Amino acid sequence: MSKKAKVNASILIIGNEILSGRTKDTNTSTLAIWLNSIGVNVAEVRVIPDAEDIIVDTLNLLRSTYDYVFTTGGIGPTHDDITAKSVSKAFGIKYEIHKEAFKILEAYYQPGEFNEGRQKMAWMPENAKLILNPTSGAPGFNVENVFSLPGVPSILKSMLGCLTNRIVGGKPIKSLTISLRTVESEIANSLTKVQNNNTDVEIGSYPFFHAGKLGVSIVIRSEDQNKIDDCNSQILKFINEKKIEVVDR
Amino acid sequence: MSKKAKVNASILIIGNEILSGRTKDTNTSTLAIWLNSIGVNVAEVRVIPDAEDIIVDTLNLLRSTYDYVFTTGGIGPTHDDITAKSVSKAFGIKYEIHKEAFKILEAYYQPGEFNEGRQKMAWMPENAKLILNPTSGAPGFNVENVFSLPGVPSILKSMLGCLTNRIVGGKPIKSLTISLRTVESEIANSLTKVQNNNTDVEIGSYPFFHAGKLGVSIVIRSEDQNKIDDCNSQILKFINEKKIEVVDR
Repeated sequence: MSKKAKVNASILIIGNEILSGRTKDTNTSTLAIWLNSIGVNVAEVRVIPDAEDIIVDTLNLLRSTYDYVFTTGGIGPTHDDITAKSVSKAFGIKYEIHKEAFKILEAYYQPGEFNEGRQKMAWMPENAKLILNPTSGAPGFNVENVFSLPGVPSILKSMLGCLTNRIVGGKPIKSLTISLRTVESEIANSLTKVQNNNTDVEIGSYPFFHAGKLGVSIVIRSEDQNKIDDCNSQILKFINEKKIEVVDR
Repeated sequence: MSKKAKVNASILIIGNEILSGRTKDTNTSTLAIWLNSIGVNVAEVRVIPDAEDIIVDTLNLLRSTYDYVFTTGGIGPTHDDITAKSVSKAFGIKYEIHKEAFKILEAYYQPGEFNEGRQKMAWMPENAKLILNPTSGAPGFNVENVFSLPGVPSILKSMLGCLTNRIVGGKPIKSLTISLRTVESEIANSLTKVQNNNTDVEIGSYPFFHAGKLGVSIVIRSEDQNKIDDCNSQILKFINEKKIEVVDR
């Protein structure tokens, strides 16, 4: 398959626990870093509640807008786990017991422990491709360009390795960070000039507090390492002129 | 002003650093917990890049859909801080120097230090109401139902106190958490029954790993404490019958 210039994904986080503030989402960061490494840009993230109509509508919009959609959350055994049913509805396909998933789960549990609650995790969209789960048995699933993963961060992370060959990215997105002992307003004008001279490179500026001291991290992002290096030189030039200290971060 | 039954907000996180995975968003959790305490439900969160057209379109959609919109990020002095300009464009109003913000910033900095970069932070939508910043001087701003806050978590947090009287919420949303030494599939069926008997209460089930042990937190949410207490009793009943241990989390 030939590689597209830019491959875009969205992440759809399904979960009342994120919207209530009880849980801080870390899956976006895990997915984004991994996707960037295989040349997929995360263009948008949405967090929505465990509500079937909202999941169906949002998923249908995102899957027609982006090359890939990754959902997180809602694939466990409890009543609030409605992602598989909602994905089936979004695609207009049957929601049924997936034979392979059933076998995997049956083998995973001790004899007699594969109860009704656990069997629910074998219900999936018809003909979904499984995403194997090396941590806790229950697989995720994939229909067309939609990949459904669990919400528990450690389990989600362990499943990404199984996906690498199923995502076709563009050029990996590289980045370089320069951290400085300064404040943003000291470098704003000079940095604007560098950005204006390098419009195809993404330059971000992020203030930080670390070990009681203020600083700014400049992040340069591009698919092209030469362009990153060029920007880096231009930034280091004005930093030297201003006698600003470069620090570790 | 009379209180609505349910007041809904959305959070719009503006920042390439979240989409690239470099930074994990914690502002959603801070905002959601605070909003819940004053009776505002967070119905949706979106994370979008530092791109004017996307900010304008998304903001116009969200502000017409929800009672309140809170934006985070993009109000600093650097080239990638384009929230104020984008909010002005979304509302079709002038982007200009806000006299009061200018005075606050001028007074905040030492004489001679209020440079061009810093002056950029006084540029805002015409007639915006300021959101004072007790931490680092530069104010946020509010136009109609849109409130624009900074991305740095500690600064955002320090500014919420100034907002309380400007947000009219419904009844505060209360919650109760019961943490159990069990796995979800052991309680899934019983919990579904409790949810079906209490359709106006939100019951969530969240597996956790803590100190090397598996557990499940059940979270009951409602504006009505009596309904929460009722659900709690029904859940404790089946937990006792199943001899499941309740643990601290």
